[in-house]
Amino acid sequence: MTVPEPRADLVGAASLTDAGLLSPVRAGAPAEAATSDAAFLQAMLDAEAGLARAQARLGTVPPSAAALITATARAERFDLREVALRARAAANPVVALVGMVTEAVGRGDPDAAHYVHQGSTSQDVLDTALMLVAARTLDLVLADLDRVAAALARLAGAHRDTPMAARTLGQHAVPTTFGLKAAGWLQAVLDARERLGRVRATGLPVQAGGAAGTLAGYLAYADLYGTRGNDHYARGLPAVLAEEVGLSDPGTPWHTVRTPLADLAAALSLTAAGLGTFAADVHLLSRTECAEVSEPGAEGRGASSAMPHKRNPALAALIRSAAYQVPGLVAGLAQAAVVDDERPAGAWHAEWEPARGCLRLVGGASHTAAELAEGLLVHPERMRANLGLTRGLVVSERLAALLSPALGRSTAKGLVSRASARAAGEGRHLADVLAEAPELVGRHDARQLRAWCDPADYTGAAGQLVDLVLARHRSAGRVRPGKREGA
Amino acid sequence: MTVPEPRADLVGAASLTDAGLLSPVRAGAPAEAATSDAAFLQAMLDAEAGLARAQARLGTVPPSAAALITATARAERFDLREVALRARAAANPVVALVGMVTEAVGRGDPDAAHYVHQGSTSQDVLDTALMLVAARTLDLVLADLDRVAAALARLAGAHRDTPMAARTLGQHAVPTTFGLKAAGWLQAVLDARERLGRVRATGLPVQAGGAAGTLAGYLAYADLYGTRGNDHYARGLPAVLAEEVGLSDPGTPWHTVRTPLADLAAALSLTAAGLGTFAADVHLLSRTECAEVSEPGAEGRGASSAMPHKRNPALAALIRSAAYQVPGLVAGLAQAAVVDDERPAGAWHAEWEPARGCLRLVGGASHTAAELAEGLLVHPERMRANLGLTRGLVVSERLAALLSPALGRSTAKGLVSRASARAAGEGRHLADVLAEAPELVGRHDARQLRAWCDPADYTGAAGQLVDLVLARHRSAGRVRPGKREGA
Amino acid sequence: MTVPEPRADLVGAASLTDAGLLSPVRAGAPAEAATSDAAFLQAMLDAEAGLARAQARLGTVPPSAAALITATARAERFDLREVALRARAAANPVVALVGMVTEAVGRGDPDAAHYVHQGSTSQDVLDTALMLVAARTLDLVLADLDRVAAALARLAGAHRDTPMAARTLGQHAVPTTFGLKAAGWLQAVLDARERLGRVRATGLPVQAGGAAGTLAGYLAYADLYGTRGNDHYARGLPAVLAEEVGLSDPGTPWHTVRTPLADLAAALSLTAAGLGTFAADVHLLSRTECAEVSEPGAEGRGASSAMPHKRNPALAALIRSAAYQVPGLVAGLAQAAVVDDERPAGAWHAEWEPARGCLRLVGGASHTAAELAEGLLVHPERMRANLGLTRGLVVSERLAALLSPALGRSTAKGLVSRASARAAGEGRHLADVLAEAPELVGRHDARQLRAWCDPADYTGAAGQLVDLVLARHRSAGRVRPGKREGA
Amino acid sequence: MTVPEPRADLVGAASLTDAGLLSPVRAGAPAEAATSDAAFLQAMLDAEAGLARAQARLGTVPPSAAALITATARAERFDLREVALRARAAANPVVALVGMVTEAVGRGDPDAAHYVHQGSTSQDVLDTALMLVAARTLDLVLADLDRVAAALARLAGAHRDTPMAARTLGQHAVPTTFGLKAAGWLQAVLDARERLGRVRATGLPVQAGGAAGTLAGYLAYADLYGTRGNDHYARGLPAVLAEEVGLSDPGTPWHTVRTPLADLAAALSLTAAGLGTFAADVHLLSRTECAEVSEPGAEGRGASSAMPHKRNPALAALIRSAAYQVPGLVAGLAQAAVVDDERPAGAWHAEWEPARGCLRLVGGASHTAAELAEGLLVHPERMRANLGLTRGLVVSERLAALLSPALGRSTAKGLVSRASARAAGEGRHLADVLAEAPELVGRHDARQLRAWCDPADYTGAAGQLVDLVLARHRSAGRVRPGKREGA
Repeated sequence: MTVPEPRADLVGAASLTDAGLLSPVRAGAPAEAATSDAAFLQAMLDAEAGLARAQARLGTVPPSAAALITATARAERFDLREVALRARAAANPVVALVGMVTEAVGRGDPDAAHYVHQGSTSQDVLDTALMLVAARTLDLVLADLDRVAAALARLAGAHRDTPMAARTLGQHAVPTTFGLKAAGWLQAVLDARERLGRVRATGLPVQAGGAAGTLAGYLAYADLYGTRGNDHYARGLPAVLAEEVGLSDPGTPWHTVRTPLADLAAALSLTAAGLGTFAADVHLLSRTECAEVSEPGAEGRGASSAMPHKRNPALAALIRSAAYQVPGLVAGLAQAAVVDDERPAGAWHAEWEPARGCLRLVGGASHTAAELAEGLLVHPERMRANLGLTRGLVVSERLAALLSPALGRSTAKGLVSRASARAAGEGRHLADVLAEAPELVGRHDARQLRAWCDPADYTGAAGQLVDLVLARHRSAGRVRPGKREGA
Repeated sequence: MTVPEPRADLVGAASLTDAGLLSPVRAGAPAEAATSDAAFLQAMLDAEAGLARAQARLGTVPPSAAALITATARAERFDLREVALRARAAANPVVALVGMVTEAVGRGDPDAAHYVHQGSTSQDVLDTALMLVAARTLDLVLADLDRVAAALARLAGAHRDTPMAARTLGQHAVPTTFGLKAAGWLQAVLDARERLGRVRATGLPVQAGGAAGTLAGYLAYADLYGTRGNDHYARGLPAVLAEEVGLSDPGTPWHTVRTPLADLAAALSLTAAGLGTFAADVHLLSRTECAEVSEPGAEGRGASSAMPHKRNPALAALIRSAAYQVPGLVAGLAQAAVVDDERPAGAWHAEWEPARGCLRLVGGASHTAAELAEGLLVHPERMRANLGLTRGLVVSERLAALLSPALGRSTAKGLVSRASARAAGEGRHLADVLAEAPELVGRHDARQLRAWCDPADYTGAAGQLVDLVLARHRSAGRVRPGKREGA
Repeated sequence: MTVPEPRADLVGAASLTDAGLLSPVRAGAPAEAATSDAAFLQAMLDAEAGLARAQARLGTVPPSAAALITATARAERFDLREVALRARAAANPVVALVGMVTEAVGRGDPDAAHYVHQGSTSQDVLDTALMLVAARTLDLVLADLDRVAAALARLAGAHRDTPMAARTLGQHAVPTTFGLKAAGWLQAVLDARERLGRVRATGLPVQAGGAAGTLAGYLAYADLYGTRGNDHYARGLPAVLAEEVGLSDPGTPWHTVRTPLADLAAALSLTAAGLGTFAADVHLLSRTECAEVSEPGAEGRGASSAMPHKRNPALAALIRSAAYQVPGLVAGLAQAAVVDDERPAGAWHAEWEPARGCLRLVGGASHTAAELAEGLLVHPERMRANLGLTRGLVVSERLAALLSPALGRSTAKGLVSRASARAAGEGRHLADVLAEAPELVGRHDARQLRAWCDPADYTGAAGQLVDLVLARHRSAGRVRPGKREGA
Repeated sequence: MTVPEPRADLVGAASLTDAGLLSPVRAGAPAEAATSDAAFLQAMLDAEAGLARAQARLGTVPPSAAALITATARAERFDLREVALRARAAANPVVALVGMVTEAVGRGDPDAAHYVHQGSTSQDVLDTALMLVAARTLDLVLADLDRVAAALARLAGAHRDTPMAARTLGQHAVPTTFGLKAAGWLQAVLDARERLGRVRATGLPVQAGGAAGTLAGYLAYADLYGTRGNDHYARGLPAVLAEEVGLSDPGTPWHTVRTPLADLAAALSLTAAGLGTFAADVHLLSRTECAEVSEPGAEGRGASSAMPHKRNPALAALIRSAAYQVPGLVAGLAQAAVVDDERPAGAWHAEWEPARGCLRLVGGASHTAAELAEGLLVHPERMRANLGLTRGLVVSERLAALLSPALGRSTAKGLVSRASARAAGEGRHLADVLAEAPELVGRHDARQLRAWCDPADYTGAAGQLVDLVLARHRSAGRVRPGKREGA
């Protein structure tokens, strides 16, 4: 999907409300367009058209009326801003939109106009539209995550055995490999993709309950038209509507059971956290003192308005900006999931903006992460140099183990501890300090101790773990598209 | 399952990104325009122009250059969407905007172009712009809260002595008055107005620290122009800039100390809670069974897409939708207030959307609350009828007290408890049941007991409390405008 | 103003830090004990013992040492408060605990002491312990949700056809049945149970990565003991440890990929929302004016300290208090899921309290919900009476449909709208007003119109939908225990 | 205040619920004891005793009864766990506690027992108790913040002119001084102290509204005793109670206007963010590669369970763990501030734990921050060495300015930009590259260019800004205690 330029004829006062200025993480990203007000308007129209076609298939709307409604249900035929402003009267935009659609259909065929929104209610339309927007946006997010995963898998494979310092609480801990670090980012992306894929495949249902979840409105017209009655409709309407608009069949209405939104929010939150972790690591590893990775260079990328020499980790900052914002939105959705009555006064209305926000921010973050992962520059020589900074201390854990057969565990651990402190204090290499220890004289010479201190030789099962994650990636790569088709 | 692709010719249009469709609480409200991307763009331009004029006053920019920059700094001269898209390169929109402004100024006077953004940094411009937008929006919010307060004060005064049931955990507790209920809403609005007013008057500072808060960039040019040096500039630049743009002087840069945003968010959160409480009460009191208040009627107001007869408390739902969303945004801002270095990678960038969101939602909520408060319909006769529903139980607390001189406290309390249970069980009036109690025979007759059970006679200090709140409102009304003038 | 100092002899006692005083929703609930500090201490000890036994099975710890460590790993042998206080030194409690366990084991067998925590790291122990506590608590929650579901299924079945008013935005909308309302609550519980069951069955993994996720420490000792090397250990250790402690095998370490906590939090959040919705409805339906349900009576239940007659919906209030708190905790966990390095400085440490909080609050809420659901009193006669309050308006949607064959849709809708307004204004029944309409004279008499206005005859597919939900409950009831056994 | 050891006689099952194990940031900190359940129990008893004494002063309780109630109101006389468990019946602990106090007083004087809780309600007692606990905890927090501020002021003064690299988005930007960095931390602490001090002085009111905020219960007894009536009581009771317990006079009840909690939460949130920022910087500056500061050494401090050589920034991690948790709790409180009726069913009950959590976490964080600030080790030589890492690029902003008089601005900026890129690419010093530029030959020699590149000479107004912050600290230090006394 390409994102066209703004259309000059649509620019007006309302058009300046949000052009992405405050959210560069998603400005111009495909998910921005997919979650625009125009996209929501089209999705609401798709829901109305779907309801008409579904009822036509069930025998309670004339097929010609359904066809005309479908043909009329095109966003560009309606004034988006007018719908938005008139939405205040009913606290939701559907009432006004139904009026406008009815009028537009009626211009073509006055009789067909009666079938617009027949038996329906605002929530059926808006919830279905929200799921449609989610579905369309998730497709974009999943495609971007595929790119991220592929790029991270390449990094993990290429650097499977590239040693670097593992850091805990910011301090060198033991060696690891950059491959394992990239594999960790990949794991998070695979987890996210799995959950988002599950939501996309089966977790985005239509809503079709009528005014209060009993389908009574739909059935009132079904009765008039002599169709087969309640049992038929209770199962049939959601199933047929789901087919028409390409979403899941919920079985029963979920107007007061907001599980689909909660599952969606949870999967998006996990995605934001995973991408945020990737970005946070890039930020740390690219710090001037560390310099183990850098962001891809691009025209203007990372420019500073004050400092001509600087290249900022701008992509990482964008991704993290999204990761900071998503949890608060998810909390808002979780509060709004406590509803009351057959439709609450405010909680339902509070879902739309945070849901869009989550989709859009994660869409922007995944798009940005693809660019970051595909272009990330890795500097193995700096990793190696940094590994040497602690002069052997980074493998002190290992030394304690290796010396224990000869010395016993307590003695070995104590000796290494004291030697580490002395090495740190005197700025000497741990191997050299240990070589002077009376306990080791005649047992282990400096050369052997130096060899034991080689960080590249103490990366544990890093390589094997990289292989496991890469195998998962390969297998996930095969499975997912099939899953989505089957949905 | 196939999902139709978004229509490329439509959904990508930046102009349709946000027309208020998903947030009817603020669609068309003054705060919507005041917080639009266009408004932010203008505020960034105002900040650039202010910096030029401030440096001109300090002698390091030619006055003619400052004048040309000011004349050029008009939002309609720049392509908002282009700024937004180019913002991705630097993770903020200022770098691109500075380039565009420099070019535009240079077309008028190539020499003047050098003084655009002289010595400055993105954060000086964006933080100042954010404060400008906040100031302009708060003026609108305060004006709306003035209307809300005035309307609630009228209600509180008019119904100072109108009895109604006070409810705790949804159950009738004791009588109160509708005046005191309205006074409670008013208290919340006065608290909010006080805090917002304080933030507006002294809590929205300019930012003027240069690349990392040392003002070194500004001083590098000041040195060239022979001005009086560091001390002069460290105090002078923020003070003069504050005068130029109409904000506060922070004393020292606050790029890593986000107190102004935290204070703003706290005041907005309190406002949202107060208005949300008002709306929640209107929702409860207008329930079909209760019907003690109703929302103002208006063309189309509260219409339902399914049910022709229904009048929904739409304004209350809109206000509550805002109150549901603000806390999550505030939590996001609080997390982003933990910064690191001289500018963090993501936390700063995560402030803009939630800050705008809070301003806009509270702006919409206060505008909507003005409409609701000014038009609220009160039904004293239903209040009176509902007060009778418990047949005297609502004053059982009082009875226990009034009977205690005669019976002793324990006996009185036990007697009332037992009589209450019996009255509830048998559907009789508490006074009638009590009149049969052997302990009371010859002491208090049914008529006296009935009189004691009059809820209107047991509203405690409700009237006095209303007077206290109204007095505060009158005094607050006198004070605030003066405060704002000084800002 | 002076504030008396806290009394030193009392308030400092660790034992009084939290006895449940501020959280009655979980005071005394099984989940409270299962999430106590003592339970966490035991779980950490279980993790240490499991690590020893797992390494024994892999050949790198003597079986006798593993047995002694297991025997020693009992919470009552250690001073919980001492562990807590000493945890400050390392920012986590494991370092101190390992020292204490090592010493305790050493008192039994000095050689065995060397095998305590061999090759391990704090995070392996704490993460595994957190998952153990989660597993144990989820078992309790699932058992309580089984009770809630069974009770709600009974209510839904018993009241499948009991008519009541459906309310949207607090206003009577159309009729529904109490059975469908209970079925809605049940749906939410079944959704929650499904997700919690999935997390319990496969989503709570052990952690076994060593100092930085490479397993290097474990392998250092494996090398000494000549076991089969990295490949063997990388897959073997987590698998065997999982068997030993009864959790899942994660495949690879998840120290920087916090998916298990995110999935857990998401499922708990959904549960809180579902139970909160149930409670919110009970609160509304039990309001004095509505009175369609009441909470179970119990000694002291719902007592008020001020009003002898009052019975508060105390259980509902308790459940809602939990539902209010969980979203903020989940947001905190989501922020903490953005980690950096191989262990972050603060984010990891910020998970423990919110994770416990979610488990405990949801545990308390589900226990309380079982009591509420099992004892809920339903008042069909009040439902019927309330349905009559709008004098037929609650079925106006139906009337518009039924009159449309005769009048055409537009005319029918307009007629019903005008008649509804008149009926509401004059306090008459909709059927009576309609009967006077010239359009209907000779077509539909008052008797037929009255019959059409019977709310009990306009509950749509409510009964069928109840049946669908009950069928799901029956089928879910058969499946789940099998799932859990496999865990 | 000293914190005594746990009393063995109080240890039981309940005692292990929370011993601080999962929250080392506050384990053993003074704020932990001040916010314990025992402290809340005592505060509730203080509120009951205060109400008795206040009513005695107003003439409606016999002084001897008030004295006996006060003497009885000691936490150690009541079974905390029993209160907690019995709290479930009423959804709050006051009802049960009142029963127990009444019984205890009655054992001394049956007549006095009648005056326990006279005319009062649970919320008066619990809200007042919450404010009392807040007041007592804030005193501890303020004392700790005084220590933090003093220590940071010493650091700022001592290192006023110690140059170091300022970093934005993790990259060296321009030079700053460590003094200014410490002054930034100090600013945040002073802002927090100011807001907490204001809340402490005037923002923590008693609650005295009776069952539903009308004071009717209090007045019912006042009437019996012939006191001066409603006006007198409406203003007198809160004022006198405030004097008795050492809190503020709210003027009117705030049971539905939760401003005091919101102000408290906002101030605590700001404090958490400020301390979190300090900790985040310490974490970054102490990273192995950077090593510009280190945490104070202490026995066992920062120990790792796996790596003998490591010294972790454990205090910083503890502080950040608190900063991560507070925003979610604040969001929860903000949602709970939307109340309904005269007491909501759940929202009020949801305040207690998050409010305690905020107080306790910030109390722990400020105590920990005092230790960190007082012991922080600063390494100016590493700062200087790191400043050299970019070989002059860190002052490129300055060079562009200094060269502009000779070359014109555009030329100067372009030249520096190109030279910076070349210097970075070739690993040479910016001054050396510039010295070869044909434009500069004969104008500026390498020696002058080198001198201009001295980072220590480009710290802008850092010193002056430090002085400004230190002056604020001195003045704040003088003012605050006076403020608090006057409260």
